[in-house]
Amino acid sequence: MSANASPEERYELITRRLQEVLGGESIKAILQEGRHPKCYLAGVEVTILLADVHAFLDNLKAPLELVAYRTKYYQHVLLAVFRTLGIPTSKLRFVEGSSYQLSREYNMDNYRLSAIVTEHDAKKAGAEVIKQVESPLLSGLLYPGMQALDEQYLGVDFQFGGVDQRKIFTFAELYLPRLGYAKRAHLMNAMVPGLAGGKMSASDPNSKIDFLDPPAVVKKKIKMAFCEPGNVTDNGLLAFVKAVLIPISELRIERLNGTDTVLEAGLGDQSPFIAEGAPEGTIFSIVRPEKFGGTVHYKNYEDIEKDFADEVIHPGDLKGAVTDAIIKVLTPIQELYSQNAEWKEAAEKAYPDPNAKKELKKKEKKKQNRPPQVANTRADTKVLPSAVPDPPAAPENNVDPSKREVADEKAGGAEKLPKEPNGAIPM
Amino acid sequence: MSANASPEERYELITRRLQEVLGGESIKAILQEGRHPKCYLAGVEVTILLADVHAFLDNLKAPLELVAYRTKYYQHVLLAVFRTLGIPTSKLRFVEGSSYQLSREYNMDNYRLSAIVTEHDAKKAGAEVIKQVESPLLSGLLYPGMQALDEQYLGVDFQFGGVDQRKIFTFAELYLPRLGYAKRAHLMNAMVPGLAGGKMSASDPNSKIDFLDPPAVVKKKIKMAFCEPGNVTDNGLLAFVKAVLIPISELRIERLNGTDTVLEAGLGDQSPFIAEGAPEGTIFSIVRPEKFGGTVHYKNYEDIEKDFADEVIHPGDLKGAVTDAIIKVLTPIQELYSQNAEWKEAAEKAYPDPNAKKELKKKEKKKQNRPPQVANTRADTKVLPSAVPDPPAAPENNVDPSKREVADEKAGGAEKLPKEPNGAIPM
Repeated sequence: MSANASPEERYELITRRLQEVLGGESIKAILQEGRHPKCYLAGVEVTILLADVHAFLDNLKAPLELVAYRTKYYQHVLLAVFRTLGIPTSKLRFVEGSSYQLSREYNMDNYRLSAIVTEHDAKKAGAEVIKQVESPLLSGLLYPGMQALDEQYLGVDFQFGGVDQRKIFTFAELYLPRLGYAKRAHLMNAMVPGLAGGKMSASDPNSKIDFLDPPAVVKKKIKMAFCEPGNVTDNGLLAFVKAVLIPISELRIERLNGTDTVLEAGLGDQSPFIAEGAPEGTIFSIVRPEKFGGTVHYKNYEDIEKDFADEVIHPGDLKGAVTDAIIKVLTPIQELYSQNAEWKEAAEKAYPDPNAKKELKKKEKKKQNRPPQVANTRADTKVLPSAVPDPPAAPENNVDPSKREVADEKAGGAEKLPKEPNGAIPM
Repeated sequence: MSANASPEERYELITRRLQEVLGGESIKAILQEGRHPKCYLAGVEVTILLADVHAFLDNLKAPLELVAYRTKYYQHVLLAVFRTLGIPTSKLRFVEGSSYQLSREYNMDNYRLSAIVTEHDAKKAGAEVIKQVESPLLSGLLYPGMQALDEQYLGVDFQFGGVDQRKIFTFAELYLPRLGYAKRAHLMNAMVPGLAGGKMSASDPNSKIDFLDPPAVVKKKIKMAFCEPGNVTDNGLLAFVKAVLIPISELRIERLNGTDTVLEAGLGDQSPFIAEGAPEGTIFSIVRPEKFGGTVHYKNYEDIEKDFADEVIHPGDLKGAVTDAIIKVLTPIQELYSQNAEWKEAAEKAYPDPNAKKELKKKEKKKQNRPPQVANTRADTKVLPSAVPDPPAAPENNVDPSKREVADEKAGGAEKLPKEPNGAIPM
């Protein structure tokens, strides 16, 4: 993006591809004031909250003793994703929730908030984000209020998340001003359904691709993905193409063309997801042998969806294209992982082998011994990867990856959500 | 009490006159270990929690900006009560909740607790103590857990309160061990009904006597008290005689006789509530003219109750005796108040004249402008005065004392409770 883009252009850039914006006027006002000095991602400085305290507040998803390792692990994952994609990370700020959520001031505000928020409002706010259980825990009621306070304590102008966060966001808009703090704007991505159809499930690794899934696992998962011929409404693959792959492809094309782009060089194969010989304007290609109709090139998502609906494109065609694109995105991330001893150590400590000490009851206990879910991650302004990885399947111990809990992230906590958020990068 | 009283004697002394004891065995064990080095009030060191944070967590009873003044005010009240009665104060420890309830460690424990306590259990625990309203606030659910954590953070062996605290106490006994902390014992006084019959109400000053009520107000309140001839079941005056006046009288007799006592000299008229010429063993006398039957002397409470039931003693007789005794107890407290500029200043700031800035709407707003209730006070081991005073009716402004909120204290939060706790000092 040009450094002298107008406030209107910046606003469009910030909000493009989002499903919903609450309080957009306040963002426009900030841009009009010229408050975008470090022209980064459309003039937005990004704070990523590593929500370690929230992680166990949501039904103890992450046990306290593992939270610090998972926080470290997540930070590595996110940085690797940004670096490989070419998203500038110099102005990115990672903050651990526990670094300020245990302070005197924060807790006084938490108590003040609890004295004006009704049980009913707190419950309603968390209904889509907190795992709903038969005997709900008190922590689930604290969760929305703390997410609201975070906006104040992180000093952000707006918060970004999946549309599943909507009730928490409107809760924050209602209550922060009652504590004397500014009401923040909220940007929301659409949700992406799981690969298995329906909601993406943290307890079903086959419903999502993880950043460290090796190519063979990616192939297997996509092969198993629910993808009915002609069915475009319940189709996790199409949703993923629209929300993740096409935006990445478009940004790469912009960079190749030398048109205004926010992307840096990136790592690994940075070619867009278009085949050789694609006509000008192509953003996504589906490669297939001549005998099945030959490669098809698309200039927009809608045409892909239409062809799939008309069964011009078949599930196998789509699966092949998606598999190739995902492997292309993941390969440089996994290379960084293999070279990073600190990241690997964090992963091992964050997701200890659940069967290590339970050899005797291995089979019977398999299900119960699943490691708890990983820490939630929340981006308080924006830029979240669409999926957060499973813990890596360490080759040295024979852990069946399907027996590990899949990761979960705040802007789309999988288990509790109907869909994963659209992870497109709204640059 | 003799410094070499046996553990059994000490235990009897600690628990006499209580309605209920939970975990008495742990107290006996502590006494057996010889852990009563500073022989104070039956070998118990007393911590009084000035629960400033709790005060606004219970439906904002005390607004934040007034809490610090009310805490100060309360500390003066309690010290004056102890000094005048002759209760040793040298080993008394006052702690403000905010001095540790905003710390990192405490809040981490609060979050940990919230992640194992169900909404249901938190609600149930507070049912008798938290003001029950149509749209309950989140703060009411935090209240019981914090009262449990307080036991750990104040380092007490047992907590003392009215039987209205029973559910909070059993909650603490259940959950503290789950956080890895010791289960504490709990001592409970009976509740004392209000003067107006039924529960003592914070919003009805006539339902209770306040420490700073001048003699004329005491007389008026007692005169108006609900006291049906022969009715001993709904009779706040009889309950007060049993729970407060007789214990004070007995301790004074012990001191006069030079028998083992914990009382120091005290201030003001320290004579027991017995009339001249009372026979040996008298603990309470009801003085009346010969024409109404003459003065009656009692050696125990049961005989008073029986005589009242049989209408040998009439409401007017009882009211006279209670009025005299209360005024005798309050006079030295009020003398201390009149001599203490700091206390008076705290009182003025803690209970600002609600009409001062609202001259125009004085009459219409009288009810709404009532100052909120004062901070809760909690004694974590024992020794609580039976009643906590109204804010003083400052003579310089024409505030109708009946328009002020009456005080409320944790071990008997008036408004929310069926009865006030028995304020007898279980020495």
